[in-house]
Amino acid sequence: MRSVSVIGIGETKMGNFPDKSLREMIFEAGNKAIDDSGIEKERIQALYLGNFNSSYWCTQSHMGPMAAETLGLQNVPTLRTEGACASGSLAFRQGLLAISSGLYDVVLVGGVEKMTHQSTPVVTTGLASAADYEYEVRMGATFPSLFAMIANRYFHEYGNVREEMAMVAIQNHDNALLNPDAQMHKKITLEKVYNGFPVAYPLTVFDCSLITDGSVFVVLAATEIAEKISKKRIIEVIGTGHGGDALTLHGKKSITALNATIAASKEAYGMAGVKPSDIDIAEVHDCFTITQIINTEDLGFFEKGKGAWAVAEGKTALDGEIPINTSGGLKAKGHPIGATGLSQVYEIVTQMRREAGERQVKKDVNIALTHNLGGSAATCVINIFKGR
Amino acid sequence: MRSVSVIGIGETKMGNFPDKSLREMIFEAGNKAIDDSGIEKERIQALYLGNFNSSYWCTQSHMGPMAAETLGLQNVPTLRTEGACASGSLAFRQGLLAISSGLYDVVLVGGVEKMTHQSTPVVTTGLASAADYEYEVRMGATFPSLFAMIANRYFHEYGNVREEMAMVAIQNHDNALLNPDAQMHKKITLEKVYNGFPVAYPLTVFDCSLITDGSVFVVLAATEIAEKISKKRIIEVIGTGHGGDALTLHGKKSITALNATIAASKEAYGMAGVKPSDIDIAEVHDCFTITQIINTEDLGFFEKGKGAWAVAEGKTALDGEIPINTSGGLKAKGHPIGATGLSQVYEIVTQMRREAGERQVKKDVNIALTHNLGGSAATCVINIFKGR
Repeated sequence: MRSVSVIGIGETKMGNFPDKSLREMIFEAGNKAIDDSGIEKERIQALYLGNFNSSYWCTQSHMGPMAAETLGLQNVPTLRTEGACASGSLAFRQGLLAISSGLYDVVLVGGVEKMTHQSTPVVTTGLASAADYEYEVRMGATFPSLFAMIANRYFHEYGNVREEMAMVAIQNHDNALLNPDAQMHKKITLEKVYNGFPVAYPLTVFDCSLITDGSVFVVLAATEIAEKISKKRIIEVIGTGHGGDALTLHGKKSITALNATIAASKEAYGMAGVKPSDIDIAEVHDCFTITQIINTEDLGFFEKGKGAWAVAEGKTALDGEIPINTSGGLKAKGHPIGATGLSQVYEIVTQMRREAGERQVKKDVNIALTHNLGGSAATCVINIFKGR
Repeated sequence: MRSVSVIGIGETKMGNFPDKSLREMIFEAGNKAIDDSGIEKERIQALYLGNFNSSYWCTQSHMGPMAAETLGLQNVPTLRTEGACASGSLAFRQGLLAISSGLYDVVLVGGVEKMTHQSTPVVTTGLASAADYEYEVRMGATFPSLFAMIANRYFHEYGNVREEMAMVAIQNHDNALLNPDAQMHKKITLEKVYNGFPVAYPLTVFDCSLITDGSVFVVLAATEIAEKISKKRIIEVIGTGHGGDALTLHGKKSITALNATIAASKEAYGMAGVKPSDIDIAEVHDCFTITQIINTEDLGFFEKGKGAWAVAEGKTALDGEIPINTSGGLKAKGHPIGATGLSQVYEIVTQMRREAGERQVKKDVNIALTHNLGGSAATCVINIFKGR
């Protein structure tokens, strides 16, 4: 298949913007990405848009043509992709596939979510629709309760890592302090995490990712075109993987070694021809602190049961051996659901271009990875990038 | 790109099934398609699911993994596609692309919608989210009112075709009488259409498609695999097209010659290497009677302004020169939104295999077309099929 590269990125600040419309956020992030790429708008042949639940929160489905119209691309074909919190990465994968297959040469990929204008029950009900309504949500399950069960099972199998979970939160908050687009600019401590509002044992509010409005866009082009027009470092997508699992927690073979991640990573590493130890930095799905720990194990960065200790030892810190979530992650940069996977791509490209300012990692970044989950790990999309 | 064929089809009856769950409908249609294909379930590598608005009507997003789990495919990667009424065709196009690019060999494509358990205002609000909330819906527009404006503009440009619009409804109802899966088994007359409940001038209730629950699945395989396993006629997908336009009515250059259809048909005819006169039968998006008339012109079957007369002359009837909507169409077979595009594929494959029973067209069917719109024609997907 044909080589594809990221040539442009753009994002809004992440946060509570009840007064900003979907259109305003799309307009800002989309135009930033197009400007950053240096490509003429007329060369964009299709738009892939990740959006989780504007159908419910904004009474707005059919978001593809709306986004295209907003960006002055009204005659391009569009597709909205949805796979819960992985919706943005699914848009990225479809855009990638469209170019690598030879169908298109240049496509725009975007993600957007808007929910802070709604009341907490409406936000929670909308989020819960990413789990199984009949078997889980109707019985009272919400995402914190599902991931709390995962955490408790992990404690049972590998020992209590409550303190290390808190360290994930502290580290991601530290990184977000250095990210001007992050929603949360607040240093936290172990004591603060422990004394946070209890959500579902063992999770306190500081173990949970944020409720976020925001949008991120990315321009993808065939690498041979990128080479002709790009004035910045070309970031090639050398591997992609897409894994699945049961929607329900009870339907999964394991909830401490997640099949969706394992399957997607096998595909992505295989396609890229790299191994976990080749990855310089990674953005890893941290919807809850326990999730980041499990994911770094499933991705092969650390042995099973050792992911928590790696955090405690500083291995995942900004100056560690494999910096994780240098952006601040879903935990502190924010979790604008349909845009989250693309926000990860935004960070990787920014680091690879050495445009990350205060949070720029010191080491060279030549190979990097994004890992994005949907629901309680029923969907996973992984991408591997190489700077040229 | 690699040749891809349809090797299996399955559908539920279309209708009002408030007591059937999404799972039950997916289970029935999905297993029928897999059984029909003769392929072992283990060979299915991915699932693409079209669903418009279960997020709103059923509090169930993230439908891909739910469908996969229901069909015993819980570890395959899944993607939900949404482009309003074209959601099912978008799933088909993504599945097709995944095989033609070489990524997968066999994929399952499905569509499902469930809405009749909700009250009319909730159904209408959910449907309206396929239009632009800020510029149209908030001001009181609903889909019948948008398409009524299209009809009135068509009358202004090409003359009053009220009677011929009624004939579209009569013809599609006649076809549905012969389709056991159709929602509507009721012969209608000109008088009945004229005296129907007025919805938005000139549309009466008999000019409008139906509110439908239903599910349709299709198995796609690389043609070289289809040739080895298929016991039925292999239906190759020889062309596909995807077009876009502004989401709003006011943003479109024309509302009587729809850019989304024109762009998608150019792509599909070009890829297939056929012209409109080569098409033996077609399923054409008839969300309203006026829509079918405009679409048959934009597809090149009839000259602009002559689509209505073609209906009156019987050219689109079951024994006409180009039978349109032999299934009964959205108007009378039903419009299970996320499944509608795949329901069109179901009919084309059934006719090509000569399994259509009483509604089987007499002529040979070797090349056929499906045309599926989203919203007020902001999205269009066209597929062209060839029997081998």
